[in-house]
Amino acid sequence: MPKRPADPAALVRAAQGGDKAALGRLLSLVERGGTRAREVGRLTFAAGQADHVIGITGAPGAGKSTLTDCLIAAARDSGRQVGVLAIDPTSPYSGGAILGDRIRMQRHALDEGVFVRSMATRGHLGGLALAAPEAIRVLAAAGADVVLVETVGVGQVEVEIAGAADTTVVVVNPGWGDAVQAAKAGLLEIADVFAVNKSDRPGATETRRDLESMLDMSTPAGDWRPPIVMTTASTGNGTDELWTTLAEHRSHLVRTGEMAHRRERQLLDELRGVMVSRIEQNVLGAGAGARYEEVAAALVRRELDPYDAASRLLEPED
Amino acid sequence: MPKRPADPAALVRAAQGGDKAALGRLLSLVERGGTRAREVGRLTFAAGQADHVIGITGAPGAGKSTLTDCLIAAARDSGRQVGVLAIDPTSPYSGGAILGDRIRMQRHALDEGVFVRSMATRGHLGGLALAAPEAIRVLAAAGADVVLVETVGVGQVEVEIAGAADTTVVVVNPGWGDAVQAAKAGLLEIADVFAVNKSDRPGATETRRDLESMLDMSTPAGDWRPPIVMTTASTGNGTDELWTTLAEHRSHLVRTGEMAHRRERQLLDELRGVMVSRIEQNVLGAGAGARYEEVAAALVRRELDPYDAASRLLEPED
Repeated sequence: MPKRPADPAALVRAAQGGDKAALGRLLSLVERGGTRAREVGRLTFAAGQADHVIGITGAPGAGKSTLTDCLIAAARDSGRQVGVLAIDPTSPYSGGAILGDRIRMQRHALDEGVFVRSMATRGHLGGLALAAPEAIRVLAAAGADVVLVETVGVGQVEVEIAGAADTTVVVVNPGWGDAVQAAKAGLLEIADVFAVNKSDRPGATETRRDLESMLDMSTPAGDWRPPIVMTTASTGNGTDELWTTLAEHRSHLVRTGEMAHRRERQLLDELRGVMVSRIEQNVLGAGAGARYEEVAAALVRRELDPYDAASRLLEPED
Repeated sequence: MPKRPADPAALVRAAQGGDKAALGRLLSLVERGGTRAREVGRLTFAAGQADHVIGITGAPGAGKSTLTDCLIAAARDSGRQVGVLAIDPTSPYSGGAILGDRIRMQRHALDEGVFVRSMATRGHLGGLALAAPEAIRVLAAAGADVVLVETVGVGQVEVEIAGAADTTVVVVNPGWGDAVQAAKAGLLEIADVFAVNKSDRPGATETRRDLESMLDMSTPAGDWRPPIVMTTASTGNGTDELWTTLAEHRSHLVRTGEMAHRRERQLLDELRGVMVSRIEQNVLGAGAGARYEEVAAALVRRELDPYDAASRLLEPED
């Protein structure tokens, strides 16, 4: 007899009781989408939020995984439960320990208070930008106080996912390049905290100075000015200071009301993303049907231009 | 008395007669959007297509503007009329000669057969990715046989705009970085032709070799394999060969039927873009009204999750 799929509510209860296998199944459900995913989504949305969602981003090779590993340790030292999402939009794999440098985090594998998950699926409607907030809610529902979201690169997907965090750490390296590079990648806008990692290498002071002068130009007076923390994740140097700085940013957000504002904006952005995905699927996807085929054929024959074709499809009563 | 706005049909006729001011006004209309833009769009869609739309992309500083300048000269030498769109998504300016390095192209300013236009507007519904194909059609309607579309960087916008070209040239420099960099930026997938520009500098041979070995791995047998042309745009060296190679790619597209296929795909992509923009505007924009406000408020109060909120908005009869 085939194994009966577990009831989402039962899985959520099991995950809340510390069952990591149940938590893993919930995340898989959410990644795959569908009716049961929807039920998981409702339950975890209602179950409450993480205290602090921290995004960790920066160029490949900057040492984000090692730094994440140190932040897990710091969070555990302060008695917090930690969920980690390691997001790699370019990887065909998902669901666990396949990615090589995720292995390092396995030093926390036996720690009941840590759950690490890699996500790379493109299966979710709307992609990782929509899957990430749902996965964050699953981790929070299972008891994570702190959720660390590590992204692999600095592309558009990463910037979108950073939008799901309360605090974003941008990791740079000494000699990583001039201020222009960071600005071009859109990192200046999303950074709440900078970590100059591998700061034992030559050029760390210059990199810090470059960042400071960029910040001089870009930070409006009175706003939070992103602090720059020097770290060497491989030895753990500076990582406690980074953890403290992240906690200070959280306090700042709460004190100024910006935390509520950010989370409100996150929800509205997610709503927009969900709607656009659904509409795209309904109007242009497999379910679009004969009407779409007919209008598309007229477009390709150049009897209609794209704007008039869109009007025909969107206002069929005309 | 205020000047009466010119009739779009009259503007198109004037542009076809060589009136550059009329052509400029048509492009401004299309950039701004609205009812008259729609009329311009219809007229220019019906007026016929350019023979060859060429996209020029690559990292900032690679020498794209100087190379574009050489391609204008080569196209003019072969008796073609040339339209140029210089697209800078990051610039707040639009509509002409404001951008510094556009100035160089002004050596063609008095040539009746060349029209250069900078575009940076965010005003167009759907952004530059939708404004570019419309502007290309305006240039074609005004008589451009060849349209050169130069983008400033290598981001997502650039890749989308490259989708509007028949042939895409990716410009790299010696020592510009290893094969991985180009692959990461998604340039390998969009390149029909590579130009190794500033090829008088050290490292040009290595860069060519790196590109060749990437192509060895990525080009399926039987497909067009992107040729690599060594250029020095500042002296004009190699730019005639580049022009010939672009023409060869066009012949290849026509011979294999791929030209018709690409232009068909461009239209369908544009249709999708137009629909998504309109839907976003209708459902989420200023016109969304009280219903949206009400559902968004319930979402922010966390009474509904984003998915149920989307369902309420998209299926109001439920």
